Amino acid sequence: MNLMKNGKAVYIETGAWSNKAIKEAKKVGEVIVAASSKDKNYTYIPDCSDLDIPEDTDYVYICENETIHGTTWNRLPNTKGHVLVSDQSSMFLSKPCNVSDYGLIYAGVQKNVGPAGMVVVIIREDLIRDDLTDLPIYLQYKTHADNGSMYNTPNCWAIYCCGKVFKYLKKLGGLEAMHKINIDKAKVFYDFLDSSKMFRGTVEKDVRSLMNIPFVTDSAELDAEVVAATKAAGYDNLKGHKSVGGLRASVYNAMPREGVEALVKFLKDFEAKHS
Amino acid sequence: MNLMKNGKAVYIETGAWSNKAIKEAKKVGEVIVAASSKDKNYTYIPDCSDLDIPEDTDYVYICENETIHGTTWNRLPNTKGHVLVSDQSSMFLSKPCNVSDYGLIYAGVQKNVGPAGMVVVIIREDLIRDDLTDLPIYLQYKTHADNGSMYNTPNCWAIYCCGKVFKYLKKLGGLEAMHKINIDKAKVFYDFLDSSKMFRGTVEKDVRSLMNIPFVTDSAELDAEVVAATKAAGYDNLKGHKSVGGLRASVYNAMPREGVEALVKFLKDFEAKHS
Repeated sequence: MNLMKNGKAVYIETGAWSNKAIKEAKKVGEVIVAASSKDKNYTYIPDCSDLDIPEDTDYVYICENETIHGTTWNRLPNTKGHVLVSDQSSMFLSKPCNVSDYGLIYAGVQKNVGPAGMVVVIIREDLIRDDLTDLPIYLQYKTHADNGSMYNTPNCWAIYCCGKVFKYLKKLGGLEAMHKINIDKAKVFYDFLDSSKMFRGTVEKDVRSLMNIPFVTDSAELDAEVVAATKAAGYDNLKGHKSVGGLRASVYNAMPREGVEALVKFLKDFEAKHS
Repeated sequence: MNLMKNGKAVYIETGAWSNKAIKEAKKVGEVIVAASSKDKNYTYIPDCSDLDIPEDTDYVYICENETIHGTTWNRLPNTKGHVLVSDQSSMFLSKPCNVSDYGLIYAGVQKNVGPAGMVVVIIREDLIRDDLTDLPIYLQYKTHADNGSMYNTPNCWAIYCCGKVFKYLKKLGGLEAMHKINIDKAKVFYDFLDSSKMFRGTVEKDVRSLMNIPFVTDSAELDAEVVAATKAAGYDNLKGHKSVGGLRASVYNAMPREGVEALVKFLKDFEAKHS
Protein backbone atom coordinates (compact mmCIF):
# COMPACT_ATOMS: atom_id res chain seq x y z
CA MET A 1 0.00 0.00 0.00
CA ASN A 2 2.95 2.28 0.61
CA LEU A 3 5.44 1.05 -1.97
CA MET A 4 3.46 0.08 -5.10
CA LYS A 5 3.87 3.36 -6.95
CA ASN A 6 3.68 1.70 -10.37
CA GLY A 7 1.38 -1.00 -9.06
CA LYS A 8 3.81 -3.84 -9.73
CA ALA A 9 5.92 -5.98 -7.40
CA VAL A 10 8.04 -9.12 -7.65
CA TYR A 11 7.63 -11.74 -4.93
CA ILE A 12 9.78 -14.78 -4.24
CA GLU A 13 7.68 -17.64 -2.90
CA THR A 14 9.54 -19.71 -0.32
CA GLY A 15 6.84 -20.87 2.09
CA ALA A 16 3.77 -20.07 4.15
CA TRP A 17 4.69 -16.49 5.02
CA SER A 18 5.66 -15.39 1.53
CA ASN A 19 2.44 -17.03 0.36
CA LYS A 20 0.39 -14.91 2.74
CA ALA A 21 2.31 -11.82 1.63
CA ILE A 22 1.62 -12.61 -2.04
CA LYS A 23 -2.08 -13.04 -1.36
CA GLU A 24 -2.27 -9.67 0.39
CA ALA A 25 -0.13 -7.85 -2.19
CA LYS A 26 -2.49 -8.98 -4.95
CA LYS A 27 -5.16 -6.84 -3.30
CA VAL A 28 -3.01 -3.78 -3.97
CA GLY A 29 -1.43 -4.35 -7.39
CA GLU A 30 0.12 -6.75 -9.87
CA VAL A 31 2.24 -9.45 -8.27
CA ILE A 32 4.85 -11.34 -10.26
CA VAL A 33 6.08 -14.50 -8.56
CA ALA A 34 9.51 -14.57 -10.17
CA ALA A 35 10.79 -17.66 -8.37
CA SER A 36 9.33 -20.34 -6.14
CA SER A 37 10.36 -23.42 -4.19
CA LYS A 38 6.82 -24.75 -4.03
CA ASP A 39 7.70 -27.72 -6.25
CA LYS A 40 9.67 -29.30 -3.39
CA ASN A 41 7.41 -28.17 -0.53
CA TYR A 42 9.58 -25.11 0.15
CA THR A 43 12.64 -27.08 1.26
CA TYR A 44 15.08 -24.88 -0.63
CA ILE A 45 15.65 -21.26 -1.69
CA PRO A 46 15.33 -20.80 -5.45
CA ASP A 47 18.23 -19.37 -7.48
CA CYS A 48 17.63 -15.62 -7.58
CA SER A 49 20.89 -14.53 -9.20
CA ASP A 50 19.29 -13.64 -12.52
CA LEU A 51 15.58 -13.01 -12.09
CA ASP A 52 13.33 -11.64 -14.80
CA ILE A 53 12.35 -8.32 -13.19
CA PRO A 54 10.29 -5.82 -15.22
CA GLU A 55 11.82 -2.35 -15.31
CA ASP A 56 8.81 -0.69 -13.61
CA THR A 57 8.76 -3.11 -10.67
CA ASP A 58 8.35 -1.20 -7.42
CA TYR A 59 10.13 -3.73 -5.22
CA VAL A 60 11.29 -7.31 -4.80
CA TYR A 61 9.92 -9.12 -1.74
CA ILE A 62 11.47 -11.97 0.21
CA CYS A 63 10.68 -13.65 3.52
CA GLU A 64 14.23 -13.94 4.77
CA ASN A 65 13.58 -16.80 7.19
CA GLU A 66 10.58 -19.07 6.67
CA THR A 67 9.61 -19.92 10.24
CA ILE A 68 7.46 -22.90 9.33
CA HIS A 69 9.61 -24.43 6.60
CA GLY A 70 12.99 -23.69 8.17
CA THR A 71 14.80 -22.11 5.25
CA THR A 72 16.84 -18.94 5.30
CA TRP A 73 18.46 -16.70 2.71
CA ASN A 74 22.23 -16.75 3.03
CA ARG A 75 22.68 -14.66 -0.11
CA LEU A 76 20.17 -11.95 -0.96
CA PRO A 77 18.49 -12.02 -4.38
CA ASN A 78 19.92 -9.93 -7.21
CA THR A 79 17.21 -7.29 -7.47
CA LYS A 80 18.98 -5.57 -10.38
CA GLY A 81 18.76 -2.21 -8.72
CA HIS A 82 15.20 -2.54 -7.51
CA VAL A 83 14.13 -1.98 -3.92
CA LEU A 84 14.44 -5.06 -1.69
CA VAL A 85 11.69 -5.63 0.88
CA SER A 86 12.34 -8.27 3.51
CA ASP A 87 10.19 -9.88 6.17
CA GLN A 88 12.82 -10.60 8.81
CA SER A 89 10.35 -11.52 11.56
CA SER A 90 11.88 -14.83 12.58
CA MET A 91 15.56 -13.89 12.13
CA PHE A 92 15.79 -10.18 13.00
CA LEU A 93 18.78 -9.63 15.32
CA SER A 94 19.97 -13.21 14.87
CA LYS A 95 22.95 -12.09 12.77
CA PRO A 96 24.49 -8.88 11.39
CA CYS A 97 22.44 -7.18 8.71
CA ASN A 98 23.69 -4.70 6.13
CA VAL A 99 20.66 -2.46 6.34
CA SER A 100 21.63 -0.45 3.26
CA ASP A 101 21.04 -3.53 1.09
CA TYR A 102 17.32 -3.10 1.76
CA GLY A 103 14.59 -0.62 0.97
CA LEU A 104 12.36 -1.88 3.75
CA ILE A 105 12.81 -4.41 6.55
CA TYR A 106 9.98 -5.42 8.84
CA ALA A 107 9.93 -7.82 11.74
CA GLY A 108 7.41 -8.79 14.38
CA VAL A 109 9.31 -8.36 17.63
CA GLN A 110 8.01 -11.53 19.26
CA LYS A 111 10.80 -13.86 18.12
CA ASN A 112 14.14 -12.26 18.99
CA VAL A 113 13.37 -8.75 20.16
CA GLY A 114 10.65 -8.43 22.77
CA PRO A 115 7.11 -9.29 23.87
CA ALA A 116 4.50 -9.94 21.17
CA GLY A 117 2.39 -7.09 19.90
CA MET A 118 4.76 -4.84 17.98
CA VAL A 119 6.57 -4.68 14.65
CA VAL A 120 9.88 -3.02 13.88
CA VAL A 121 10.06 -1.30 10.50
CA ILE A 122 13.24 0.07 8.94
CA ILE A 123 12.46 2.04 5.79
CA ARG A 124 14.75 3.96 3.44
CA GLU A 125 13.82 7.62 3.81
CA ASP A 126 13.20 8.21 0.10
CA LEU A 127 10.54 5.44 0.15
CA ILE A 128 8.39 7.33 2.66
CA ARG A 129 5.75 8.86 0.43
CA ASP A 130 3.72 11.97 1.10
CA ASP A 131 1.22 11.45 -1.74
CA LEU A 132 -0.72 8.67 -0.02
CA THR A 133 -3.29 10.93 1.59
CA ASP A 134 -6.15 8.62 0.53
CA LEU A 135 -4.70 5.80 2.60
CA PRO A 136 -5.85 5.52 6.25
CA ILE A 137 -3.47 7.73 8.19
CA TYR A 138 -2.30 4.91 10.43
CA LEU A 139 -1.29 2.82 7.40
CA GLN A 140 1.00 5.50 5.97
CA TYR A 141 4.64 5.04 6.94
CA LYS A 142 4.95 8.83 6.74
CA THR A 143 2.65 9.18 9.74
CA HIS A 144 4.92 7.10 11.91
CA ALA A 145 8.15 8.59 10.54
CA ASP A 146 6.89 12.14 11.09
CA ASN A 147 5.78 11.40 14.65
CA GLY A 148 8.76 9.50 16.00
CA SER A 149 6.66 6.31 15.99
CA MET A 150 4.33 7.93 18.52
CA TYR A 151 1.40 9.05 16.38
CA ASN A 152 -0.68 6.77 18.58
CA THR A 153 0.08 5.88 22.17
CA PRO A 154 2.46 3.04 21.37
CA ASN A 155 3.14 -0.30 23.04
CA CYS A 156 5.36 1.26 25.72
CA TRP A 157 6.05 -1.97 27.59
CA ALA A 158 7.23 -3.74 24.42
CA ILE A 159 9.42 -0.76 23.51
CA TYR A 160 10.95 -0.81 26.99
CA CYS A 161 11.65 -4.55 26.80
CA CYS A 162 13.13 -4.24 23.29
CA GLY A 163 15.47 -1.57 24.66
CA LYS A 164 16.60 -4.02 27.35
CA VAL A 165 17.30 -6.65 24.66
CA PHE A 166 19.22 -4.15 22.51
CA LYS A 167 21.42 -3.30 25.50
CA TYR A 168 21.93 -6.99 26.28
CA LEU A 169 22.99 -7.67 22.69
CA LYS A 170 25.41 -4.75 22.65
CA LYS A 171 26.97 -5.95 25.92
CA LEU A 172 27.27 -9.46 24.47
CA GLY A 173 29.38 -8.11 21.61
CA GLY A 174 26.68 -7.13 19.13
CA LEU A 175 25.10 -9.15 16.37
CA GLU A 176 28.46 -10.64 15.36
CA ALA A 177 28.67 -12.31 18.76
CA MET A 178 25.00 -13.34 18.66
CA HIS A 179 25.53 -14.84 15.21
CA LYS A 180 28.45 -16.97 16.42
CA ILE A 181 26.35 -18.24 19.32
CA ASN A 182 23.48 -19.06 16.98
CA ILE A 183 25.72 -20.91 14.49
CA ASP A 184 27.29 -22.93 17.28
CA LYS A 185 23.90 -23.71 18.84
CA ALA A 186 22.16 -24.75 15.63
CA LYS A 187 25.19 -26.89 14.70
CA VAL A 188 24.61 -29.02 17.81
CA PHE A 189 21.18 -29.94 16.47
CA TYR A 190 22.02 -30.22 12.79
CA ASP A 191 25.04 -32.45 13.58
CA PHE A 192 22.71 -34.70 15.53
CA LEU A 193 20.21 -34.84 12.66
CA ASP A 194 22.98 -35.65 10.16
CA SER A 195 24.28 -38.50 12.32
CA SER A 196 20.89 -39.94 13.29
CA LYS A 197 19.36 -42.97 11.60
CA MET A 198 15.88 -42.15 12.92
CA PHE A 199 15.67 -38.37 12.40
CA ARG A 200 16.56 -36.21 9.45
CA GLY A 201 16.30 -32.51 8.59
CA THR A 202 13.85 -31.61 5.83
CA VAL A 203 15.69 -28.63 4.37
CA GLU A 204 18.60 -28.43 1.90
CA LYS A 205 21.80 -28.02 3.89
CA ASP A 206 22.97 -24.74 2.37
CA VAL A 207 19.81 -22.86 3.36
CA ARG A 208 19.14 -24.31 6.80
CA SER A 209 17.71 -21.74 9.18
CA LEU A 210 19.62 -20.93 12.37
CA MET A 211 16.29 -20.25 14.08
CA ASN A 212 13.80 -22.94 13.02
CA ILE A 213 14.82 -26.56 12.48
CA PRO A 214 12.14 -28.81 10.98
CA PHE A 215 12.83 -32.53 11.11
CA VAL A 216 11.05 -35.85 10.63
CA THR A 217 11.27 -39.56 11.15
CA ASP A 218 10.20 -41.97 8.44
CA SER A 219 6.58 -42.11 9.59
CA ALA A 220 3.92 -39.69 10.77
CA GLU A 221 3.05 -42.13 13.57
CA LEU A 222 6.58 -42.11 14.92
CA ASP A 223 6.67 -38.30 14.57
CA ALA A 224 3.57 -38.11 16.77
CA GLU A 225 5.12 -40.52 19.27
CA VAL A 226 8.24 -38.36 19.53
CA VAL A 227 6.16 -35.21 20.00
CA ALA A 228 4.23 -36.90 22.83
CA ALA A 229 7.42 -38.19 24.47
CA THR A 230 9.18 -34.80 24.31
CA LYS A 231 6.12 -33.05 25.65
CA ALA A 232 5.88 -35.49 28.55
CA ALA A 233 9.55 -34.80 29.31
CA GLY A 234 9.00 -31.03 29.37
CA TYR A 235 10.13 -30.09 25.86
CA ASP A 236 7.30 -27.96 24.55
CA ASN A 237 6.16 -26.94 21.09
CA LEU A 238 8.13 -29.52 19.11
CA LYS A 239 5.19 -30.40 16.89
CA GLY A 240 5.76 -29.11 13.36
CA HIS A 241 3.32 -26.54 12.02
CA LYS A 242 0.07 -28.18 10.93
CA SER A 243 0.77 -27.24 7.30
CA VAL A 244 3.97 -29.32 7.13
CA GLY A 245 3.72 -31.91 9.92
CA GLY A 246 6.75 -33.59 11.49
CA LEU A 247 8.67 -31.80 14.20
CA ARG A 248 10.31 -28.43 14.55
CA ALA A 249 12.82 -27.12 17.05
CA SER A 250 12.87 -23.34 17.30
CA VAL A 251 16.14 -22.03 18.66
CA TYR A 252 15.73 -18.26 18.78
CA ASN A 253 18.31 -15.99 20.37
CA ALA A 254 16.84 -16.62 23.82
CA MET A 255 17.33 -20.41 23.68
CA PRO A 256 20.64 -21.33 25.36
CA ARG A 257 23.00 -23.97 23.93
CA GLU A 258 22.18 -26.08 27.00
CA GLY A 259 18.56 -26.31 25.89
CA VAL A 260 19.58 -27.69 22.52
CA GLU A 261 22.03 -30.13 24.11
CA ALA A 262 19.34 -31.41 26.46
CA LEU A 263 16.91 -31.98 23.59
CA VAL A 264 19.57 -33.73 21.53
CA LYS A 265 20.36 -36.01 24.46
CA PHE A 266 16.68 -36.80 24.87
CA LEU A 267 16.23 -37.59 21.17
CA LYS A 268 19.40 -39.72 21.13
CA ASP A 269 18.07 -41.73 24.06
CA PHE A 270 14.69 -42.04 22.34
CA GLU A 271 16.39 -43.31 19.20
CA ALA A 272 18.49 -45.83 21.15
CA LYS A 273 15.41 -47.19 22.94
CA HIS A 274 13.39 -47.46 19.72
CA SER A 275 16.04 -49.02 17.47
CA MET B 1 -13.91 -0.04 5.97
CA ASN B 2 -15.92 -2.83 7.54
CA LEU B 3 -19.27 -1.15 8.10
CA MET B 4 -19.89 1.17 5.12
CA LYS B 5 -21.96 -1.25 3.07
CA ASN B 6 -23.97 1.54 1.43
CA GLY B 7 -21.00 3.92 1.62
CA LYS B 8 -22.75 6.38 3.91
CA ALA B 9 -22.30 7.19 7.59
CA VAL B 10 -23.47 9.83 10.05
CA TYR B 11 -20.90 11.33 12.40
CA ILE B 12 -21.47 13.55 15.42
CA GLU B 13 -18.64 16.02 15.84
CA THR B 14 -17.82 16.69 19.48
CA GLY B 15 -14.08 17.31 19.52
CA ALA B 16 -10.61 16.30 18.39
CA TRP B 17 -11.21 12.55 18.27
CA SER B 18 -14.48 12.65 16.37
CA ASN B 19 -12.77 15.09 14.00
CA LYS B 20 -10.00 12.60 13.29
CA ALA B 21 -12.60 9.85 12.82
CA ILE B 22 -14.54 12.02 10.34
CA LYS B 23 -11.40 12.74 8.36
CA GLU B 24 -10.56 9.03 8.10
CA ALA B 25 -14.13 7.97 7.31
CA LYS B 26 -14.23 10.37 4.36
CA LYS B 27 -11.53 8.22 2.76
CA VAL B 28 -13.98 5.32 2.74
CA GLY B 29 -17.36 6.82 1.91
CA GLU B 30 -19.80 9.67 2.31
CA VAL B 31 -19.77 11.27 5.74
CA ILE B 32 -22.71 13.32 7.00
CA VAL B 33 -21.91 15.43 10.06
CA ALA B 34 -25.43 15.54 11.47
CA ALA B 35 -24.61 17.51 14.59
CA SER B 36 -21.61 19.41 15.93
CA SER B 37 -20.51 21.38 18.96
CA LYS B 38 -17.70 23.09 17.08
CA ASP B 39 -19.41 26.51 17.39
CA LYS B 40 -18.59 26.60 21.10
CA ASN B 41 -15.18 24.90 20.91
CA TYR B 42 -16.70 21.49 21.75
CA THR B 43 -17.77 22.44 25.26
CA TYR B 44 -21.15 20.72 25.00
CA ILE B 45 -22.84 17.69 23.43
CA PRO B 46 -25.31 18.66 20.69
CA ASP B 47 -28.95 17.63 20.91
CA CYS B 48 -29.20 14.30 19.09
CA SER B 49 -32.77 13.38 19.94
CA ASP B 50 -34.09 14.01 16.44
CA LEU B 51 -31.28 13.85 13.91
CA ASP B 52 -31.78 13.93 10.17
CA ILE B 53 -30.46 10.44 9.30
CA PRO B 54 -30.81 9.18 5.70
CA GLU B 55 -32.49 5.79 5.46
CA ASP B 56 -29.46 4.11 3.84
CA THR B 57 -26.99 5.29 6.50
CA ASP B 58 -24.76 2.43 7.55
CA TYR B 59 -24.09 3.68 11.05
CA VAL B 60 -24.06 6.65 13.41
CA TYR B 61 -20.71 7.41 15.03
CA ILE B 62 -20.00 9.08 18.35
CA CYS B 63 -16.90 9.56 20.47
CA GLU B 64 -18.47 8.83 23.82
CA ASN B 65 -15.91 10.69 25.91
CA GLU B 66 -13.82 13.42 24.31
CA THR B 67 -10.50 13.08 26.15
CA ILE B 68 -9.18 16.49 25.16
CA HIS B 69 -12.36 18.54 25.52
CA GLY B 70 -13.74 16.76 28.57
CA THR B 71 -17.29 16.08 27.44
CA THR B 72 -19.18 12.83 27.77
CA TRP B 73 -22.48 11.45 26.47
CA ASN B 74 -24.89 10.81 29.32
CA ARG B 75 -27.70 9.95 26.90
CA LEU B 76 -26.93 8.15 23.66
CA PRO B 77 -28.13 9.72 20.39
CA ASN B 78 -31.39 8.58 18.86
CA THR B 79 -30.09 6.66 15.87
CA LYS B 80 -33.60 5.88 14.64
CA GLY B 81 -32.82 2.21 14.30
CA HIS B 82 -29.41 2.64 12.73
CA VAL B 83 -26.27 0.99 14.02
CA LEU B 84 -24.48 2.97 16.73
CA VAL B 85 -20.67 2.99 16.63
CA SER B 86 -18.90 4.37 19.69
CA ASP B 87 -15.29 5.21 20.43
CA GLN B 88 -15.19 4.52 24.17
CA SER B 89 -11.40 4.77 24.48
CA SER B 90 -11.26 7.19 27.36
CA MET B 91 -14.29 5.93 29.30
CA PHE B 92 -14.44 2.19 28.68
CA LEU B 93 -15.02 0.37 32.01
CA SER B 94 -15.61 3.65 33.84
CA LYS B 95 -19.33 2.91 34.21
CA PRO B 96 -21.88 0.22 33.26
CA CYS B 97 -22.56 -0.07 29.55
CA ASN B 98 -25.60 -1.61 27.91
CA VAL B 99 -23.67 -3.30 25.13
CA SER B 100 -26.79 -4.18 23.16
CA ASP B 101 -27.42 -0.47 22.51
CA TYR B 102 -24.42 -0.52 20.19
CA GLY B 103 -23.40 -2.10 16.91
CA LEU B 104 -19.72 -1.60 17.54
CA ILE B 105 -17.70 -0.35 20.51
CA TYR B 106 -13.98 0.20 20.34
CA ALA B 107 -11.56 1.37 22.98
CA GLY B 108 -7.80 1.67 23.20
CA VAL B 109 -6.94 -0.16 26.41
CA GLN B 110 -4.41 2.37 27.66
CA LYS B 111 -6.82 4.49 29.71
CA ASN B 112 -8.81 2.19 32.00
CA VAL B 113 -7.99 -1.35 30.92
CA GLY B 114 -4.31 -2.15 30.56
CA PRO B 115 -0.93 -1.22 29.10
CA ALA B 116 -0.87 0.77 25.84
CA GLY B 117 -0.68 -1.08 22.54
CA MET B 118 -4.03 -2.82 22.19
CA VAL B 119 -7.64 -2.05 21.30
CA VAL B 120 -10.76 -3.81 22.55
CA VAL B 121 -13.51 -4.21 19.94
CA ILE B 122 -17.04 -5.39 20.69
CA ILE B 123 -18.99 -5.94 17.48
CA ARG B 124 -22.51 -7.23 16.89
CA GLU B 125 -22.16 -10.58 15.15
CA ASP B 126 -24.38 -9.69 12.20
CA LEU B 127 -22.07 -6.75 11.39
CA ILE B 128 -19.10 -9.04 10.79
CA ARG B 129 -19.03 -9.23 7.00
CA ASP B 130 -17.60 -12.03 4.90
CA ASP B 131 -17.73 -10.16 1.59
CA LEU B 132 -14.75 -7.91 2.32
CA THR B 133 -12.16 -10.16 0.71
CA ASP B 134 -10.53 -7.22 -1.11
CA LEU B 135 -9.69 -5.59 2.21
CA PRO B 136 -6.31 -6.48 3.77
CA ILE B 137 -6.99 -9.59 5.84
CA TYR B 138 -5.81 -7.98 9.07
CA LEU B 139 -8.30 -5.12 8.63
CA GLN B 140 -11.32 -7.42 8.37
CA TYR B 141 -13.15 -7.91 11.67
CA LYS B 142 -14.09 -11.36 10.40
CA THR B 143 -10.43 -12.42 10.54
CA HIS B 144 -10.21 -11.65 14.23
CA ALA B 145 -13.65 -13.01 15.07
CA ASP B 146 -12.93 -16.29 13.27
CA ASN B 147 -9.58 -16.73 14.98
CA GLY B 148 -10.43 -15.92 18.58
CA SER B 149 -8.47 -12.65 18.26
CA MET B 150 -5.33 -14.70 17.63
CA TYR B 151 -4.93 -14.52 13.87
CA ASN B 152 -1.59 -12.89 14.61
CA THR B 153 0.50 -13.47 17.70
CA PRO B 154 -1.29 -10.94 19.88
CA ASN B 155 -0.10 -8.56 22.59
CA CYS B 156 -0.02 -11.31 25.24
CA TRP B 157 1.29 -9.10 28.03
CA ALA B 158 -1.47 -6.53 27.52
CA ILE B 159 -4.11 -9.29 27.41
CA TYR B 160 -2.74 -10.72 30.66
CA CYS B 161 -2.79 -7.33 32.37
CA CYS B 162 -6.31 -6.58 31.10
CA GLY B 163 -7.41 -9.89 32.62
CA LYS B 164 -5.98 -8.78 35.96
CA VAL B 165 -7.93 -5.50 35.72
CA PHE B 166 -11.17 -7.32 34.83
CA LYS B 167 -10.75 -9.51 37.91
CA TYR B 168 -10.01 -6.48 40.07
CA LEU B 169 -13.14 -4.71 38.81
CA LYS B 170 -15.32 -7.77 39.44
CA LYS B 171 -13.94 -8.07 42.96
CA LEU B 172 -14.61 -4.38 43.52
CA GLY B 173 -18.29 -4.92 42.74
CA GLY B 174 -18.29 -4.50 38.98
CA LEU B 175 -18.79 -1.40 36.88
CA GLU B 176 -21.62 -0.18 39.12
CA ALA B 177 -19.13 0.09 41.99
CA MET B 178 -16.47 1.64 39.75
CA HIS B 179 -19.01 4.18 38.49
CA LYS B 180 -19.87 5.26 42.04
CA ILE B 181 -16.19 5.70 42.85
CA ASN B 182 -15.68 7.74 39.69
CA ILE B 183 -18.67 9.99 40.36
CA ASP B 184 -17.52 10.59 43.93
CA LYS B 185 -13.95 11.27 42.80
CA ALA B 186 -14.83 13.65 39.97
CA LYS B 187 -17.24 15.50 42.29
CA VAL B 188 -14.33 16.41 44.55
CA PHE B 189 -12.73 18.26 41.66
CA TYR B 190 -15.85 19.73 40.07
CA ASP B 191 -17.04 21.02 43.47
CA PHE B 192 -13.71 22.76 43.86
CA LEU B 193 -13.95 24.30 40.37
CA ASP B 194 -17.50 25.50 41.04
CA SER B 195 -16.45 27.17 44.30
CA SER B 196 -13.18 28.63 43.07
CA LYS B 197 -12.79 32.27 42.04
CA MET B 198 -9.59 31.60 40.15
CA PHE B 199 -10.38 28.35 38.32
CA ARG B 200 -13.40 27.29 36.31
CA GLY B 201 -14.38 24.21 34.29
CA THR B 202 -14.75 24.76 30.55
CA VAL B 203 -17.53 22.26 29.86
CA GLU B 204 -21.31 22.52 30.29
CA LYS B 205 -22.24 20.94 33.60
CA ASP B 206 -24.61 18.28 32.29
CA VAL B 207 -21.99 16.68 30.02
CA ARG B 208 -18.91 16.88 32.21
CA SER B 209 -16.66 13.89 31.79
CA LEU B 210 -15.89 11.70 34.80
CA MET B 211 -12.47 10.98 33.31
CA ASN B 212 -11.06 14.20 31.88
CA ILE B 213 -11.57 17.58 33.55
CA PRO B 214 -10.40 20.60 31.56
CA PHE B 215 -10.21 23.87 33.45
CA VAL B 216 -8.77 27.36 33.09
CA THR B 217 -8.00 30.55 34.91
CA ASP B 218 -8.75 33.92 33.34
CA SER B 219 -5.40 34.19 31.57
CA ALA B 220 -3.09 31.95 29.58
CA GLU B 221 -0.16 33.35 31.57
CA LEU B 222 -1.69 32.29 34.87
CA ASP B 223 -2.59 28.89 33.36
CA ALA B 224 1.08 28.41 32.49
CA GLU B 225 2.11 29.49 35.97
CA VAL B 226 -0.23 26.92 37.53
CA VAL B 227 1.07 24.17 35.26
CA ALA B 228 4.66 25.01 36.26
CA ALA B 229 3.77 25.11 39.97
CA THR B 230 1.90 21.78 39.89
CA LYS B 231 4.71 20.16 37.95
CA ALA B 232 7.27 21.40 40.47
CA ALA B 233 5.13 19.94 43.25
CA GLY B 234 4.97 16.51 41.56
CA TYR B 235 1.58 16.76 39.85
CA ASP B 236 2.31 15.68 36.29
CA ASN B 237 0.52 16.17 33.00
CA LEU B 238 -1.82 18.95 34.06
CA LYS B 239 -1.18 21.01 30.96
CA GLY B 240 -4.22 21.01 28.71
CA HIS B 241 -3.87 19.50 25.25
CA LYS B 242 -2.11 21.90 22.90
CA SER B 243 -5.27 22.23 20.80
CA VAL B 244 -7.31 23.72 23.67
CA GLY B 245 -4.77 25.14 26.14
CA GLY B 246 -5.53 25.65 29.82
CA LEU B 247 -5.26 22.73 32.21
CA ARG B 248 -6.69 19.25 32.35
CA ALA B 249 -6.90 16.76 35.20
CA SER B 250 -7.35 13.18 34.02
CA VAL B 251 -8.90 10.99 36.69
CA TYR B 252 -9.12 7.55 35.13
CA ASN B 253 -10.17 4.48 37.10
CA ALA B 254 -6.66 4.05 38.44
CA MET B 255 -6.51 7.51 40.06
CA PRO B 256 -7.50 7.25 43.74
CA ARG B 257 -9.73 9.84 45.44
CA GLU B 258 -6.68 10.79 47.52
CA GLY B 259 -4.90 11.93 44.36
CA VAL B 260 -7.75 14.27 43.50
CA GLU B 261 -7.97 15.57 47.06
CA ALA B 262 -4.25 16.31 47.11
CA LEU B 263 -4.45 18.23 43.84
CA VAL B 264 -7.48 20.20 45.04
CA LYS B 265 -5.63 21.12 48.22
CA PHE B 266 -2.64 22.28 46.19
CA LEU B 267 -4.79 24.40 43.87
CA LYS B 268 -6.72 25.89 46.82
CA ASP B 269 -3.42 26.89 48.43
CA PHE B 270 -2.23 28.31 45.12
CA GLU B 271 -5.41 30.34 44.80
CA ALA B 272 -5.12 31.63 48.38
CA LYS B 273 -1.51 32.70 47.83
CA HIS B 274 -2.30 34.43 44.55
CA SER B 275 -5.49 36.24 45.55
